[in-house]
Amino acid sequence: MSSVTVFEVGPRDGLQNEAAPIPTAAKIAFVDALTAAGLPVIEVSAFVSPKWVPQMADAAEVFAGITRRPGTRYTALVPNAAGLERAIAAGVTEVSVFAAASETFSRRNTNQSIDQSLVHYRAVVKAAQAAGIRVRGYLSTAFGCPFEGEVPIDRVVRLTQALLDLGVFEVAVSDTIGIAHPGHVKRALAALTANIAPGALAMHFHDTRGTALANVLASLDFGIRTFDASAGGLGGCPYAPGATGNLATEDLLYMLHGLGIETGVDLDAVRASSTAIEPLVGHALPSRYVRATSRSPSS
Amino acid sequence: MSSVTVFEVGPRDGLQNEAAPIPTAAKIAFVDALTAAGLPVIEVSAFVSPKWVPQMADAAEVFAGITRRPGTRYTALVPNAAGLERAIAAGVTEVSVFAAASETFSRRNTNQSIDQSLVHYRAVVKAAQAAGIRVRGYLSTAFGCPFEGEVPIDRVVRLTQALLDLGVFEVAVSDTIGIAHPGHVKRALAALTANIAPGALAMHFHDTRGTALANVLASLDFGIRTFDASAGGLGGCPYAPGATGNLATEDLLYMLHGLGIETGVDLDAVRASSTAIEPLVGHALPSRYVRATSRSPSS
Repeated sequence: MSSVTVFEVGPRDGLQNEAAPIPTAAKIAFVDALTAAGLPVIEVSAFVSPKWVPQMADAAEVFAGITRRPGTRYTALVPNAAGLERAIAAGVTEVSVFAAASETFSRRNTNQSIDQSLVHYRAVVKAAQAAGIRVRGYLSTAFGCPFEGEVPIDRVVRLTQALLDLGVFEVAVSDTIGIAHPGHVKRALAALTANIAPGALAMHFHDTRGTALANVLASLDFGIRTFDASAGGLGGCPYAPGATGNLATEDLLYMLHGLGIETGVDLDAVRASSTAIEPLVGHALPSRYVRATSRSPSS
Repeated sequence: MSSVTVFEVGPRDGLQNEAAPIPTAAKIAFVDALTAAGLPVIEVSAFVSPKWVPQMADAAEVFAGITRRPGTRYTALVPNAAGLERAIAAGVTEVSVFAAASETFSRRNTNQSIDQSLVHYRAVVKAAQAAGIRVRGYLSTAFGCPFEGEVPIDRVVRLTQALLDLGVFEVAVSDTIGIAHPGHVKRALAALTANIAPGALAMHFHDTRGTALANVLASLDFGIRTFDASAGGLGGCPYAPGATGNLATEDLLYMLHGLGIETGVDLDAVRASSTAIEPLVGHALPSRYVRATSRSPSS
């Protein structure tokens, strides 16, 4: 069944959504451990305003401290030209931009309409490319918006294409609120892959309703071969026991390896990476695999 | 995509694995609420030794107290002829017997070898049929055993067939320790359905490693149309936050309905049933759907 690229977002999307401040040295050790586990791409940090996201204020220090392994990609989220400048200064060679499929979500998160954000990102992508940096696009709230509810699939197709037209190499179609189920995924991917090569798509699922792995399974049938995941399920809301955000890398690997799909990643080593940072985030990691193997090591 | 039968095991398999003693009146109200939610079959209790399973000691009282809706099946687990006698006296019209696919698990749980248990169940099934009662078979540890590890698929096929040969109408192939992934499920169901009609099979998944819904999705492709689930995910270990046992009925319904599959069950009503009993079990329900909708009712 060939191979899959696991796009590790724990150090960025995971830690960004954790309340406890994590020391820079611990972040560096976390990224290095994920590198050693064999993850092919790691989103290390975000060059965003420290005022808005204090957890990511040390992005440059983290990039300066990690040991880069040849063949592993180290990426950063950049919201604008200023962020891109900082990323370039930090020696980053791949960045991500973040658009929304919901007008309300776009305005609340970026203070711009969707169309304004695309105009804006066009300039960011151009500047990145001029600096030899390739750009990934996230399309958030692609399956539903906390403010607007369900998002029409034709809009998701149009915006995914619009991001690709800007020059991003891949769009991570993202279920920001974890509401997608395989029925929805099949409809969305039927429409997306009718227009777009599956190699230009990644899927970013949240396990909020327990459907993330079923959504991955449905996506594999459409030729999707890149999935985002967060080590330990980092980023799960610490105030709601059992509620989770990002799909846990360990859970994803357990299923993919069970399907005979190669990832090049060592599941036990990822588990060791996330459990090493667990005491610092101040709550149990949401990953089901981590919880199951903590409870009864014999099974 | 036709319809699916959700086999509700919360009042039996769920509550049996909860540490807090639940008052009989609360159990009756729980079953009545599940009936009102439209569940087509509810495993109400078990006629087992109160010495071993004190939580199920009031099986007869629960059956006497519930309001039976025509068209809904109310079942009970019976371990032996004495249990069957008690079930018949309580007016039960459908029972389940419980075999294991692992020799060690069988000896530890029933003090019999697998072959001994089958000889034993042959008499139970005969006696049940003579009383006009139909019998379901569980095959536990069908994907792995806490003592023996992986269980060979050819043994699962042989024992499923052996149970059917005894006269059970359906075998619930059960992942007792929640270790199955879709790769395993596909291999097992390819072998099972090569020999056995899918209509004689049910799948009983635990969500311990987060794979339960993905396993259901894989099973649908093999024509499986009966799935066990526990309202609220009852039966999850109360001592390990985030660790769960049975697949939650709400999570299963969310996915099935999203796939356009009819169940005849009202998801919101099931959620109301399980959240009504939540304060009595003494911990948050593991169901991801319940947790997600408790946290942010707006999404």
